[in-house]
Amino acid sequence: MIAEVIERHYSFEGEMLKYRHQSEVLACEMTFSLYLPTLVTKKDYSLIWWLSGLTCTDDNFTQKSGFQKYAAAHEVAVIIPDTSPRGIEIPDSPDWDLGQGASFYVNATEEPWQKNYQMYSYLTEELPKIVSDLIPNLSGNESIMGHSMGGHGALMVGLKNPTRFSAISAFAPILSPSQVPWGQKAFTHYLGKDKSSWEQWDATNLITKPFQHKLPILITQGSEDNFYENQLQEYSFLATAKENKQNINYQKVVGYDHSYFTIASFMEEHFKFHVTNMENQ
Amino acid sequence: MIAEVIERHYSFEGEMLKYRHQSEVLACEMTFSLYLPTLVTKKDYSLIWWLSGLTCTDDNFTQKSGFQKYAAAHEVAVIIPDTSPRGIEIPDSPDWDLGQGASFYVNATEEPWQKNYQMYSYLTEELPKIVSDLIPNLSGNESIMGHSMGGHGALMVGLKNPTRFSAISAFAPILSPSQVPWGQKAFTHYLGKDKSSWEQWDATNLITKPFQHKLPILITQGSEDNFYENQLQEYSFLATAKENKQNINYQKVVGYDHSYFTIASFMEEHFKFHVTNMENQ
Repeated sequence: MIAEVIERHYSFEGEMLKYRHQSEVLACEMTFSLYLPTLVTKKDYSLIWWLSGLTCTDDNFTQKSGFQKYAAAHEVAVIIPDTSPRGIEIPDSPDWDLGQGASFYVNATEEPWQKNYQMYSYLTEELPKIVSDLIPNLSGNESIMGHSMGGHGALMVGLKNPTRFSAISAFAPILSPSQVPWGQKAFTHYLGKDKSSWEQWDATNLITKPFQHKLPILITQGSEDNFYENQLQEYSFLATAKENKQNINYQKVVGYDHSYFTIASFMEEHFKFHVTNMENQ
Repeated sequence: MIAEVIERHYSFEGEMLKYRHQSEVLACEMTFSLYLPTLVTKKDYSLIWWLSGLTCTDDNFTQKSGFQKYAAAHEVAVIIPDTSPRGIEIPDSPDWDLGQGASFYVNATEEPWQKNYQMYSYLTEELPKIVSDLIPNLSGNESIMGHSMGGHGALMVGLKNPTRFSAISAFAPILSPSQVPWGQKAFTHYLGKDKSSWEQWDATNLITKPFQHKLPILITQGSEDNFYENQLQEYSFLATAKENKQNINYQKVVGYDHSYFTIASFMEEHFKFHVTNMENQ
């Protein structure tokens, strides 16, 4: 598992790196980005994971969110995986919300997706090993955040691994994928028509589970988000969380939309939330 | 001269707007972006102009520089023009450093460029009128900044209008276009082979002129910029400035390259420089 640097830019006195590596779990070549906050190591780094939305690669977040300023200020490392397996030999779909760029971060069980679309195992097993080889001085404190499909991914991965992550945050997440068109389409193709197989991948179900360690959760949703009405509504998730006495800081921000302009506007607040919770571990 | 809003995003409690309008000076339809720092008018806005580099549109700066945070904090409006006239009927070149996306912000005198490539007049006459119609409460304080070709553009436009602008700053500017391949190619095509016609468009010449009001100038250049050696060297410009007793704050930043990661890293410092100088007017 050797990761090769393919781009390197100084950024806020740290380094914005892009790597290429052969993924065994996904059976294809993958790229990911990694921000290291200072070039002179001063302390062990906490690590924040960012999961992107539909159609994105790691580049959208590294180029448009402005996160590097806050990662540098707090001396936190940030890893940004791609949103699916990639390549001409990898199954895809002509639709932008299915296939490459649209993995939903699950482990697929259906054909033709099963062989490559094992993003959950990639994110939670293979990639952490690669990152710990690249950053020898990790503190062990980790948290996870994301946007839209990746906002749900952050909630899903975080809630399934409640002792590993110190906090979860999300921008405009697909909170209840089993109940909305984007999630239903993806889950049907990747997991099959039997909805009982969807439950382990749906944050609105996961937040009811007794294994659920109560992680701090922050969600930012723009009031002018075009996808809100059909894909992103919070009622089911928040009601389920409340039943389970899980406190969610759900903030609806007036006027903001689904774009990276919204993400950039609230990135500083999300970083403070993650760093505070990681330091309290 | 009616400008129509074609994109609108909330950003740092302000608005990131994109407009389309018919330019009389360029004889084509143009777009530009405008950031307004607050939605509730508190004071008259100072205005910063940003000129982008080769191949860019206004989108590169609005999406990648992270400037909105600082414009919001200082309550400054920012206007980002496109880098050339545009459209299928507009003369172009197969080369990325000539034609559309590569105007060098001059008024062309040669064919086939003369009719449309009047970017200097567009920037200094037509667009200011449009902006002042859009923002009724401008303070009248203006400054100008840019990157690479647009870094030279900022110096050139600023030095030709020393009583209009309070300050100039540039990232990795083409400081002496008449002496380097990018500038020589563009000036030959747009202005002709007679180099005397180039002088009024070259910052290294303009900084010698007696009409030169001494504007504060800040320049940031990355030491790992791939274009530095052949296109961006500072020696001729700085020597000429020194002869003219023009003080230049030229900072070479170690490790940084030609990308927007560098621009984002030093944007806060450049904004402080502009705001301080505009407030001292």
